[in-house]
Amino acid sequence: MALDNKMAGKDLNDDDIRDKIPLVAKDHPEHKSRFSVGGVEFGGPLIPVMAGPNTVENEEMIVKTAKSIKASGAHFLRGGAFKPLTFPYRSEKYYETREQGLEWLQVAKKETGLPIVTEVMDVAKIDVVAKNSDMLQIGTRNMQNYVLLTEVGKTGMPVMLKRGYGSSLRDWLMAAEYIALEHDRLGQQQQIVLCERGVVSNHTHRAGSRFLLDLQVVPAAQDVTHLPVMTDPSHATFWQPWVRPMMLASIGAGADGLMLEVHPNPPEAAVDPLQCSSLEQFDEMMKAMRPVAAAIGRTLDA
Amino acid sequence: MALDNKMAGKDLNDDDIRDKIPLVAKDHPEHKSRFSVGGVEFGGPLIPVMAGPNTVENEEMIVKTAKSIKASGAHFLRGGAFKPLTFPYRSEKYYETREQGLEWLQVAKKETGLPIVTEVMDVAKIDVVAKNSDMLQIGTRNMQNYVLLTEVGKTGMPVMLKRGYGSSLRDWLMAAEYIALEHDRLGQQQQIVLCERGVVSNHTHRAGSRFLLDLQVVPAAQDVTHLPVMTDPSHATFWQPWVRPMMLASIGAGADGLMLEVHPNPPEAAVDPLQCSSLEQFDEMMKAMRPVAAAIGRTLDA
Amino acid sequence: MALDNKMAGKDLNDDDIRDKIPLVAKDHPEHKSRFSVGGVEFGGPLIPVMAGPNTVENEEMIVKTAKSIKASGAHFLRGGAFKPLTFPYRSEKYYETREQGLEWLQVAKKETGLPIVTEVMDVAKIDVVAKNSDMLQIGTRNMQNYVLLTEVGKTGMPVMLKRGYGSSLRDWLMAAEYIALEHDRLGQQQQIVLCERGVVSNHTHRAGSRFLLDLQVVPAAQDVTHLPVMTDPSHATFWQPWVRPMMLASIGAGADGLMLEVHPNPPEAAVDPLQCSSLEQFDEMMKAMRPVAAAIGRTLDA
Amino acid sequence: MALDNKMAGKDLNDDDIRDKIPLVAKDHPEHKSRFSVGGVEFGGPLIPVMAGPNTVENEEMIVKTAKSIKASGAHFLRGGAFKPLTFPYRSEKYYETREQGLEWLQVAKKETGLPIVTEVMDVAKIDVVAKNSDMLQIGTRNMQNYVLLTEVGKTGMPVMLKRGYGSSLRDWLMAAEYIALEHDRLGQQQQIVLCERGVVSNHTHRAGSRFLLDLQVVPAAQDVTHLPVMTDPSHATFWQPWVRPMMLASIGAGADGLMLEVHPNPPEAAVDPLQCSSLEQFDEMMKAMRPVAAAIGRTLDA
Repeated sequence: MALDNKMAGKDLNDDDIRDKIPLVAKDHPEHKSRFSVGGVEFGGPLIPVMAGPNTVENEEMIVKTAKSIKASGAHFLRGGAFKPLTFPYRSEKYYETREQGLEWLQVAKKETGLPIVTEVMDVAKIDVVAKNSDMLQIGTRNMQNYVLLTEVGKTGMPVMLKRGYGSSLRDWLMAAEYIALEHDRLGQQQQIVLCERGVVSNHTHRAGSRFLLDLQVVPAAQDVTHLPVMTDPSHATFWQPWVRPMMLASIGAGADGLMLEVHPNPPEAAVDPLQCSSLEQFDEMMKAMRPVAAAIGRTLDA
Repeated sequence: MALDNKMAGKDLNDDDIRDKIPLVAKDHPEHKSRFSVGGVEFGGPLIPVMAGPNTVENEEMIVKTAKSIKASGAHFLRGGAFKPLTFPYRSEKYYETREQGLEWLQVAKKETGLPIVTEVMDVAKIDVVAKNSDMLQIGTRNMQNYVLLTEVGKTGMPVMLKRGYGSSLRDWLMAAEYIALEHDRLGQQQQIVLCERGVVSNHTHRAGSRFLLDLQVVPAAQDVTHLPVMTDPSHATFWQPWVRPMMLASIGAGADGLMLEVHPNPPEAAVDPLQCSSLEQFDEMMKAMRPVAAAIGRTLDA
Repeated sequence: MALDNKMAGKDLNDDDIRDKIPLVAKDHPEHKSRFSVGGVEFGGPLIPVMAGPNTVENEEMIVKTAKSIKASGAHFLRGGAFKPLTFPYRSEKYYETREQGLEWLQVAKKETGLPIVTEVMDVAKIDVVAKNSDMLQIGTRNMQNYVLLTEVGKTGMPVMLKRGYGSSLRDWLMAAEYIALEHDRLGQQQQIVLCERGVVSNHTHRAGSRFLLDLQVVPAAQDVTHLPVMTDPSHATFWQPWVRPMMLASIGAGADGLMLEVHPNPPEAAVDPLQCSSLEQFDEMMKAMRPVAAAIGRTLDA
Repeated sequence: MALDNKMAGKDLNDDDIRDKIPLVAKDHPEHKSRFSVGGVEFGGPLIPVMAGPNTVENEEMIVKTAKSIKASGAHFLRGGAFKPLTFPYRSEKYYETREQGLEWLQVAKKETGLPIVTEVMDVAKIDVVAKNSDMLQIGTRNMQNYVLLTEVGKTGMPVMLKRGYGSSLRDWLMAAEYIALEHDRLGQQQQIVLCERGVVSNHTHRAGSRFLLDLQVVPAAQDVTHLPVMTDPSHATFWQPWVRPMMLASIGAGADGLMLEVHPNPPEAAVDPLQCSSLEQFDEMMKAMRPVAAAIGRTLDA
């Protein structure tokens, strides 16, 4: 017991990090996890694209979004029903519609066939979120909420683990190991995708932004772990005009997936209007990504 | 609902942050919360010192520590029973002794009269931790675990809220507002202390360290909130020889309290041996602090 | 006089930065400088690639490198003759060979036709460096050496201005304005290329690295200035295996050029052996870049 | 030659930094340089205070400032005659008055006896600045302008070396070694003072600020070097109300000196009006510092 935290401050390659993360560490350089979620394969040549609004505002908007992104070629519908609120005061309406948000996501899934990824932040809500989604998202603020990681792991559901906005790669991989440990105890394959979403930085180039997309972490993580590593350029840049270049940059860096915030009417988005792309912009972005993916031997078409 | 997160990326003084944190914001420049926990007053001239080991390893060590720090003049005994483990693999012994750790803290309290501050990280354990402590600590990794903040707030217990190691002052104050909201609903005074514990930085000056003690946040927070603001130089520096200068610097910066990691035998400490001070070092540190506190019109003596 | 530095701490979009940089600011969204250096066009569809060793070690190695990178399709030969040395103690041999380094670069140019870009760090050496190169490089450590910027600007030579490793975009653009002001006084077009080379960050993912390639700065700078913006993934990653993904990411982000460190025998490189690519690696990297450039409507072929 | 830069990216304690800085490294734990400049002793119990305006605006203001700070107990008059301008456009008046600024500093010195510290940024101006000052200041933007460091070192004058705002401790000490090498070649004692002035950080707590005072660097530097280490809380905080707490924190951290920006009429200061203290504020700050210095066994009185 005495030793295992003694290294807590060490950098990733100071000690043999692989000993700390026996389940998520690679066995050999080509080792990458490959698994399907709702018919979408992670870890192979496909670069799955998850798109949708920050918040599931109502049934109409989520269905409209789902149909449009499906037509553009997205693989997953993302949308927040239960979400962390930095600011504690919200209208009653917000709290009333959270479970409804999950139902609306299910309607959108039925209409389009798109699997659902949505966040869970409360152990007490894992069941209801799990029943209404295909992949559970752990948000940046909960990356080291070890109780949540363990309980989410116990469901055996596929998990998308966002990187804490101030966390090291080492911390991130250890958080993934918590989930992997539960998957392992269930005797199943680890189905975990890591998602870089921007780290706090003084180099954001806009007064309203706080994050810098850390693309070096993509090859760095892929050197150590067999888990797929994706990025979320929308939250990182916090500025829609920069999402497209950082999305293409992510593909160049070798990202194994992308999450993009899309809204049918960005100026009216309930949350983060500055960073979300319109349905038309998203369609153009998918078109722009395809040849870049092909140029590096990947694809956006399942 | 649409507007309240639109400002999420703004810096503290871009918009009127006070509107976002009506309960923890100051009403006037001299406004500071003043309240007693276990007979120790926060927010007044006293600079309460919380000392003790990272982990309550056994009854003997915690009682020995408590007696010694009491004799040196500490005001609180700190010690971790339930603690976040970055690394998921621990001996069975670790898991067996966690509830026992709370009992050992109670023994130490009975022997010395020192009130107890200890971390809670699991909603399911709030009751047992609350019963066995005088002040609940929310750790850096859970600063934005809003479910935990709310549930801890509902107990009405005094809370020490550590700053997330990558979090902005704005995020930190909004997290405090979550707790304050529950205290307010209970019709009681807000009893919340903020604790700066180091932020991730590339300027740590040791390969094994990751954090920089952000002392500018002390006056910055005190400008905005009436809550007392303390510091934890042990976790920030991660290196015992630098704890003493950063402890004195904290007093100079106007800190309203200090948390210091103390262990009867640092080289054998279960966790973080490099940062903890011995009982003898702590005694000397208390002696060093007293005249500095006096020089700025504060005191270490209740 | 009173006002112009009052904004010194402001972020880029807090005030109208364009008023501070009248010469390097864009006039309209499509405004981009286009100019040729040694027959290589910057600011158009071509993505010029500058390759070569950190240090010009001897004639043989630089000629061999030049021939090889020319065959692979590079557009510029880079190589350091006069270089900043973080560490003041060097063998006499180092100081003796610096002016010779410039001569060796000229031999390599004659053999291959590749134009030369090399650093100048001393006002007293501007003449000799200018005579022996096609483009003058200002290094990261001298980005705010305003005396050097002005004197280099007075030569009227094309300049590649590296970003200071801790500098803001605002500082970088103002440094470029110093050079532009001299070009303007000479009545000539501004011939300045900006080069992002990694910023200090706690998120480098290797104990031996200090920098993170800031790709968000590429669209951010291009939003404000008409100057071409390139990247140097070798210095940023400080680790050869990550150069290739960050090089492709740079193209995705819209970089207007690339600088890559290449050495005929990396393990024996005099400086930075961990980050430089071999001639064979560089040849493969050029092959990998071509389809990615084509996928976004750019080219590597003049 | 091959080896010495191979370690360039390493952190301070990864390799034996002392081997890289033989002249500025400590020989034993109590080793600290002690020397007098203009009758003021550095490296002993005295904490020298350097005060004055950012810019020497005219004779009247600098003489008034000098007399006032002298009466309050300051030990040095600081003031910028030649200064780096981030923004290249200044009124003619600015350029006309720079050499005059040095003369005005000399008038102030004659009136008060206070020794002068002022910045030099141009090799061509070293002579005139050296003739008109007691200590040469190297600014943050020129910390790695190795040509300037060497030429300033050759004067044999005492030097105050500000830390680059993005530089590591390692880089800073190596920059000091450049100066020390020249002092050593002259056969004289090294007379160099290091000055921490804030590092770029995302944790500045004000939209208009870019820097965080890194007080951990004080003990960290003192562990490795015998050179005195001072701080400049005015530039670091960029906000006058926070200067006082960070000034007292600096003393607590063990700083061997302080630089404070003082102006007879802050709202009208030509540069940085938000960070400078008035003559009355400075007087009160000196009074506040004295008992804190005494509490740690230091003094402000020569």
